[in-house]
Amino acid sequence: MGMNLTQKIISAHLVAGKMNPGEEIAIRIDQTLTQDATGTMSYLEFEAIGIDRVKTELSVSYVDHNLLQTDFKNADDHLFLQTIAMRYGIWFSKPGNGICHQVHLERFAVPGKTLIGSDSHTPTAGGCGMLAIGAGGLDVAMAMAGKPFFLRMPKVVGVYLFNRLNPWVSARDVALYLLSLLTVKGGLGKVLEYFGEGVKTLSVPERATICNLGTEMGATTSLFPSDEITQAWLIAQGREQDFIPLAGDADARYDEIIEIDLSKIEPLCACPSSPDNVKRVSEEAGKPVFQVIIGSCANSSLKDLMVVSKVMERYKTHPMVSFEINPGSLQVLENLTALSGLRSLLEGGVRIHQSGCLGCIGMGQAPPTNAISLRTFTRNFPGRSGTNPDFVYLVSPETAVASAIRGVITDPRELGDYPEISLPGRFLINDSLLIPPLPEEQARKVEIIRGPNIAPLPGFDPLPEELEGVFLLKVGDNITTDHIMPAGAQILPLRSNLPAISQYVFKNVWADFPREALSLKEKGLSVGVLGGENYGQGSSREHAALAPRYLGVRVKLARSFARIHRSNLINFGILPLTFENSQDYERLEGGDRFHIKNLKMNLSSGEKRFKIEIEGKGEIWAIGDFTERERACLLAGSLLNLAKE
Amino acid sequence: MGMNLTQKIISAHLVAGKMNPGEEIAIRIDQTLTQDATGTMSYLEFEAIGIDRVKTELSVSYVDHNLLQTDFKNADDHLFLQTIAMRYGIWFSKPGNGICHQVHLERFAVPGKTLIGSDSHTPTAGGCGMLAIGAGGLDVAMAMAGKPFFLRMPKVVGVYLFNRLNPWVSARDVALYLLSLLTVKGGLGKVLEYFGEGVKTLSVPERATICNLGTEMGATTSLFPSDEITQAWLIAQGREQDFIPLAGDADARYDEIIEIDLSKIEPLCACPSSPDNVKRVSEEAGKPVFQVIIGSCANSSLKDLMVVSKVMERYKTHPMVSFEINPGSLQVLENLTALSGLRSLLEGGVRIHQSGCLGCIGMGQAPPTNAISLRTFTRNFPGRSGTNPDFVYLVSPETAVASAIRGVITDPRELGDYPEISLPGRFLINDSLLIPPLPEEQARKVEIIRGPNIAPLPGFDPLPEELEGVFLLKVGDNITTDHIMPAGAQILPLRSNLPAISQYVFKNVWADFPREALSLKEKGLSVGVLGGENYGQGSSREHAALAPRYLGVRVKLARSFARIHRSNLINFGILPLTFENSQDYERLEGGDRFHIKNLKMNLSSGEKRFKIEIEGKGEIWAIGDFTERERACLLAGSLLNLAKE
Repeated sequence: MGMNLTQKIISAHLVAGKMNPGEEIAIRIDQTLTQDATGTMSYLEFEAIGIDRVKTELSVSYVDHNLLQTDFKNADDHLFLQTIAMRYGIWFSKPGNGICHQVHLERFAVPGKTLIGSDSHTPTAGGCGMLAIGAGGLDVAMAMAGKPFFLRMPKVVGVYLFNRLNPWVSARDVALYLLSLLTVKGGLGKVLEYFGEGVKTLSVPERATICNLGTEMGATTSLFPSDEITQAWLIAQGREQDFIPLAGDADARYDEIIEIDLSKIEPLCACPSSPDNVKRVSEEAGKPVFQVIIGSCANSSLKDLMVVSKVMERYKTHPMVSFEINPGSLQVLENLTALSGLRSLLEGGVRIHQSGCLGCIGMGQAPPTNAISLRTFTRNFPGRSGTNPDFVYLVSPETAVASAIRGVITDPRELGDYPEISLPGRFLINDSLLIPPLPEEQARKVEIIRGPNIAPLPGFDPLPEELEGVFLLKVGDNITTDHIMPAGAQILPLRSNLPAISQYVFKNVWADFPREALSLKEKGLSVGVLGGENYGQGSSREHAALAPRYLGVRVKLARSFARIHRSNLINFGILPLTFENSQDYERLEGGDRFHIKNLKMNLSSGEKRFKIEIEGKGEIWAIGDFTERERACLLAGSLLNLAKE
Repeated sequence: MGMNLTQKIISAHLVAGKMNPGEEIAIRIDQTLTQDATGTMSYLEFEAIGIDRVKTELSVSYVDHNLLQTDFKNADDHLFLQTIAMRYGIWFSKPGNGICHQVHLERFAVPGKTLIGSDSHTPTAGGCGMLAIGAGGLDVAMAMAGKPFFLRMPKVVGVYLFNRLNPWVSARDVALYLLSLLTVKGGLGKVLEYFGEGVKTLSVPERATICNLGTEMGATTSLFPSDEITQAWLIAQGREQDFIPLAGDADARYDEIIEIDLSKIEPLCACPSSPDNVKRVSEEAGKPVFQVIIGSCANSSLKDLMVVSKVMERYKTHPMVSFEINPGSLQVLENLTALSGLRSLLEGGVRIHQSGCLGCIGMGQAPPTNAISLRTFTRNFPGRSGTNPDFVYLVSPETAVASAIRGVITDPRELGDYPEISLPGRFLINDSLLIPPLPEEQARKVEIIRGPNIAPLPGFDPLPEELEGVFLLKVGDNITTDHIMPAGAQILPLRSNLPAISQYVFKNVWADFPREALSLKEKGLSVGVLGGENYGQGSSREHAALAPRYLGVRVKLARSFARIHRSNLINFGILPLTFENSQDYERLEGGDRFHIKNLKMNLSSGEKRFKIEIEGKGEIWAIGDFTERERACLLAGSLLNLAKE
């Protein structure tokens, strides 16, 4: 029986466990990446582990999220990250060098290797045949310390692509089509592995776009084979030596198969305010648009911007639209400039920003009140744009440019002939903002610069035998980590300071949560949260676990959890329990008092059923299906405690 | 007796008064400009006046300050400004089109015309032979309504330039040299008019840099003649029809003369934290630098950036430096791109931002804690960078690039040969982001879009017969409008909302001021502030008068006032009084209770001496040397009340 590509890469890195879907496995990690919003915490954790130099083949620290420096905090963090990188043998990508996933694809992604990154869109590198998984910052810190990465062996979904995309339809539309099929939770516990003759019609950045947006389906990761297209990409990057051909066996078995006829896909859009609220662009056409932004780790490659610039040779931006472009990387911007693409954009009236995540993480670019904004970003969760309520559509660069010209949502096929573009066989390579690791001797002498906002990690107490407390808040399905721990220009600068950032937990859901939680904590009571399906989808930020933990949250009871958030909860000693009887969700309310006994006994013995007494409502049963490692971690109070033991 | 150029332009626009220094005159205004940080208030005031269409030859509304959209407020203001412009016959420069003064110089400045702008650096257009004066937003609103602009006839200082600048020394160094002579208050009540053979060695953007920084000396404006260099600039802008030759008469008389041998000027820098804390760069050389930014209305022209890009063809940015460039305008960026200058900058590792004011007004780009930042900006007032304390040096682009390469403050002459650059005889012109006024018919139909943060102007009560209250705060010399009403990313978005922004008055001086002031106001007491010399220097923002007025401030008693701030105080009914006996400043303290009687009587009769009884300290005398118009305005409680009468 042949193996699929996912199985091949995993088996080549398998350290523990068996590749049976749902069983915990441990894999060796070749590369790690962090970005600045999650990275500062990850490196504080790495320091706490106490290793002298990273043990991976390659680790990169990117600065791409917190580029708006409105006070000392972000600038201090950049300097902290740079000196940490110098100290511990890590590559450092300076502010302005670009979005981590775009730069990683350009400079570091290697077919067949494993990568974990403290960013949920790490699977972008799957476009280059790399097994790339988003993880919590502590998981990344552990990997840098040479420890394996633990996950449940995912199911592998074979996505069979055939035929080719029509003009004006692009990779984004493939992903949106899949989102319409799978919804934001359809990928939970799965790898989306692409195969079939349609694969050959997609360049590496296009494959990367599709892998990137697999995250929005909840997938563990997404993966393309490594073929002559991959080779051409690596040659264009001056990295031909990194190429190896890789594909699933001809008789590979998949847990499921999805077939996609690329020629049948139309221009699509994700309507406000969920990535899976997908419609045809033609259905939404004609609505006035006030802002259009092309950028983000999903859609800001050279090809994306060249298509747009070719269109702008013939048109001007509509007067009422702010048409903005955030180039994915310094390399993208430089090649765009060399190919005269930038000039066409400027002539067409495009507002060009520095390379980085910017508005995609709410760092600027907030749209006006009651105004539609079209974006090639990854997410349109409510309020993530910085404006609340907001009306954000996710679209392809083609739909974006067509709409920016017309001033209304426009099907790009109305623009006539699709522009011909040709990309260079060898890109201009510019690593001026990418600082290599220092040699060991030199590295040891580096003094780490810590600004006043960089607070040391607090301690995490072990799990007690009993938890008595209050389910302070009940939320619905598909709650995102943006709901739990919002991002944006006001809050992200606090990410190195747990006491400060925890004051914003559930800010847009129930702003009093932190105060109420701390008041319970002071009374010696524990805090719980009740959730629906797919609790904690979205960003990988471990602050969505760390900050609630700081506020005294010790248990989350939901119908189901998103993968990374569940890991983060366990890493920081919060019990993620699911309802044994899903209907109990309906019976419970925010404010219900709970009592869970025999916790240590249950966890030590591997008992999966947990009895929860609810004051005035009798008892309910919850499931805690933890691996041995997870149980040890929960008992210790955090993975960090465990690692130090 | 011949006339100097200032007198010629004023006399051609004189509506009332005589050109005797110190006497009030009124001049006709040909053009106005606003930027977004002051503009929203200015247009609210314009609306309150109730005119159907601007009556100037040309009025332009620029968006360049509040480009960081972290929530709906700034984006809403942009839309408000755009629809206001459409409604009232005003040009609109969209976000990303560039800094108002750079764009105005490129597209609109005309020799011999008059311009007032609600931005203190409006004199930049003096580089093109235009009489361009910074003013409060209400003054600009009045000018748009066809009213003349009132000012005291300034003294005219003739600045005689001879010889030429040495390589690596540039216009910025000329301005810094003058700042070292005149200090931040040496230009008060004066126009700096440049003449002499040295003038011919300076291009229009270089002249503009010098005029721009005259603002930091407190000058009413600065002015260069219009000659063949001006003509070449206008030809390069496709505006040859706007050229007329203009100069002072050969026998022109000046109130003072300053002679400057350009060949004797060395690279200079303004050390932290005042623009007049000038030293030679060589004296400061060797100090480590973590951030270098080239930009702002003072130094972000094509020539500035081309010099830097030529240098960067040979060097890379130092690894520890964030080297950033904010192009002055879309035109600058496009021409830089076409001349391959942008590519050299990108290859050298420069972080390129959108065109706009950005860090110069504290909108991002805050430096790290305890780190030196070199900037080609206009001001280095304490904390204006967003980091507090900060260590900001003001330097030329040449000094900036040399230091960015070396990682320490560096005299640019160490770089060897000065690069040869040639600028195009005709610039690429791109007005895609510049929206012309609508025809009258169409304009009347425009609906103005007002976001929820755009609050109507509150009323302003007339001056009472007596003021009884407390001098709540005493400050020292050279207090800036940044001290009074800080800018930055947190506060500027509130500029259309007086109750909200007033909570930040004196934030970095004494954060309790607003609360204490409102508490006095509630008790029916007036609030006073005690100041030293040159009170209210810096930005033209009228919020530094409006917001204190909202808090109940009715009198400011200082040793002297900066021109624009004094006008703004009068425009909004706050009495700007000076000490008759300067030593009384020493006797008074924050907390002193005051009582001023017979106010209306004094003002109505033109009495200049005001008796102030200070509880427990006897009486002191203050001077209120107001023109008739000013007295009427103070009595009415605001110019707006007067205009409506």
